[in-house]
Amino acid sequence: MAKEIERRFHLKDDSWRGLTEGEWLKQGYLSVERERTVRVRIKGEQAWLTLKSNISNVSRHEFEYPIPLADAETILAAMCPLLVEKKRYRILHGGHLWEVDEFFGLNEGLTLAEVELAGEDEAYARPDWLGDEVTEDPRYTNAYLSKHPWPSWGRD
Amino acid sequence: MAKEIERRFHLKDDSWRGLTEGEWLKQGYLSVERERTVRVRIKGEQAWLTLKSNISNVSRHEFEYPIPLADAETILAAMCPLLVEKKRYRILHGGHLWEVDEFFGLNEGLTLAEVELAGEDEAYARPDWLGDEVTEDPRYTNAYLSKHPWPSWGRD
Repeated sequence: MAKEIERRFHLKDDSWRGLTEGEWLKQGYLSVERERTVRVRIKGEQAWLTLKSNISNVSRHEFEYPIPLADAETILAAMCPLLVEKKRYRILHGGHLWEVDEFFGLNEGLTLAEVELAGEDEAYARPDWLGDEVTEDPRYTNAYLSKHPWPSWGRD
Repeated sequence: MAKEIERRFHLKDDSWRGLTEGEWLKQGYLSVERERTVRVRIKGEQAWLTLKSNISNVSRHEFEYPIPLADAETILAAMCPLLVEKKRYRILHGGHLWEVDEFFGLNEGLTLAEVELAGEDEAYARPDWLGDEVTEDPRYTNAYLSKHPWPSWGRD
């Protein structure tokens, strides 16, 4: 059992590009509800099944189990109508690991940065390329994006 | 990956009792949809996470993964609002393994028998205690029963 605190941000500019190599992620959802999600993710030759319970916007329980790649491919193809495809860049800054996700497929054009913290009030150094925080906006979760791709949102 | 063919029946009488020892099962659902279910099950000191895709009423895909007991207990308590509790009796008859489920908790009073077959048209010997087949009635799935306990159904 793990409790995960994440903060999520827009990107201010492209100056994060070139800091690190990205890796492809493909994932789908067996269940997307407000209280919990069930996700299958493939990264390279590895795959995982992940359960997340949404306790609040920034704090939640998470259980993750490795599964055979062939199972994950069948599950994504046969049981997950909505897929999220993205390239993930892992960037170390000020002692924290930042993950920049560049979305493709239905969410092409969207880029988000996330940092995982030990507690909701833990301090962190802001990289220069960091934009506005969107942690409190549930539309920026991958689960929501799988159902409502970003280009379909009405722009304010 | 496995493809599972199950037929489900009422019990005609209590003559199956005493043929075998039963074992307690406690399970909950992270997702119950017409197309797929995600189940957590505890049997004694063991626990599993199971994904089922409903292809038709009698034929479906199933993926099952063992998970730590402590995880399963937390998931059932924190993420599964609806639980199914039952005692399962495994009875060998005519070369097939029959599972008789006696429900407790919210579904107390209901008893069902299931047999797993290699194909939808595989022949099987009917035990004397077997009642009417309910395979085509989706209300008798454990997923449905978790949401709509049997005593709450209107009796015809």
